[in-house]
Amino acid sequence: MTKVTAQLSVSVGGFYAGPVHSGDGDWIDSAESAAFFRVTRWVTEASAWRERQGFAGGERDTNSDVVAESFGAAGAYVMGRRMADGGEVPWGDEPPFRAPVFVVTHRPRETLLRGGGTSFTYVTDGVASAVEQARAAAGGKDVAVAGGGSLVRQVIKAGLLDELELHVVPVVLGTGLRLFDADLDLDEKEAIELTPTRVISTPQVTHIRYKVGGRAALVLDDRGSGGGPTTVG
Amino acid sequence: MTKVTAQLSVSVGGFYAGPVHSGDGDWIDSAESAAFFRVTRWVTEASAWRERQGFAGGERDTNSDVVAESFGAAGAYVMGRRMADGGEVPWGDEPPFRAPVFVVTHRPRETLLRGGGTSFTYVTDGVASAVEQARAAAGGKDVAVAGGGSLVRQVIKAGLLDELELHVVPVVLGTGLRLFDADLDLDEKEAIELTPTRVISTPQVTHIRYKVGGRAALVLDDRGSGGGPTTVG
Repeated sequence: MTKVTAQLSVSVGGFYAGPVHSGDGDWIDSAESAAFFRVTRWVTEASAWRERQGFAGGERDTNSDVVAESFGAAGAYVMGRRMADGGEVPWGDEPPFRAPVFVVTHRPRETLLRGGGTSFTYVTDGVASAVEQARAAAGGKDVAVAGGGSLVRQVIKAGLLDELELHVVPVVLGTGLRLFDADLDLDEKEAIELTPTRVISTPQVTHIRYKVGGRAALVLDDRGSGGGPTTVG
Repeated sequence: MTKVTAQLSVSVGGFYAGPVHSGDGDWIDSAESAAFFRVTRWVTEASAWRERQGFAGGERDTNSDVVAESFGAAGAYVMGRRMADGGEVPWGDEPPFRAPVFVVTHRPRETLLRGGGTSFTYVTDGVASAVEQARAAAGGKDVAVAGGGSLVRQVIKAGLLDELELHVVPVVLGTGLRLFDADLDLDEKEAIELTPTRVISTPQVTHIRYKVGGRAALVLDDRGSGGGPTTVG
């Protein structure tokens, strides 16, 4: 059965990129990209990713297996406009997706057909519509929300995400873009409960996969009968 | 050899408590405590914690073993003033630490001796001094930075932390206090590199232990020869 999945490489503090590039200079030289490149280094080094990009070499290891599994599970993608724009040139004639990609945007545009099975369809009536179109195109495989973080957040907010995999990279960053930012529309005493379904640990990254549950109120427990805080202050 | 360690229970977005309690009403009824209680629920349910608090029952499981191991490894504690104040009454005559605790504060106060081996010594000349005094008192065991988050951050900033264990609880929160907040004094293109040394996965929480390395510049890699972003947008 088709699941809607998302995955993101993040620092231990939850950053998936540095502070957003302002437009001065090239993105590649920005603090945004410097942090993004650090947390996605394990992907770049994976042979499974390099093969899709047409690059030689790379590590044939557990991390590469995780990448290969992700590519293999996706029957269609949903993508943010900024990522689609940024990738259009570098991905070239044979983008790594090899499946239909539905781009959430405000600007109508004709579907772009690329080699290797990749197409980009521009969806202007919202995230839910893009997910629905991707589901219809996925041929029973999963719909992968490819990013970026703000799109993943929108899909979570809309209650449409079934599974989230965080690739937690052992690095502390001081600032940047976070997946779980303030605009999730959660009340102060409200949470979204997850269930971990798989953890894979490697020296470069800890892969944690979650089933996404519903929203739930944060209910006060009795601390076992009134004990004080032991880890906060 | 004595290590300086810290551990914190956090949500998948890195929150260890809700937004800081303003002082209106009781802390126990605040959004800060509601989120804190959610991310520390696995501790409250652990028999090893309950025994230290003098409470009956609890789970005798892997999570309880993690709690027991933490208590057993600590020869002395360093604690923030707010946590020490908040705990003073509920911890009672026999606090759960059973070791010397060094409280970082601006207010001089005579050492408080409690039962079971716990003492509270108030250190007014800074975090480094508190860590040093705890090291001398630890009898070869570890110095545990007990929290809260801002104290852990200060110890990291000062380059004094050897090991960090994050207990990542499968819940998404919308707002609150984060360990890795903006005042780490990291440059936009700078990071603190960690090395994962142990991962323990349970349904309630993923325990990830890191060795804390030094600060390092975020160096641009070549993306394998100029591929575009594949997970950001």
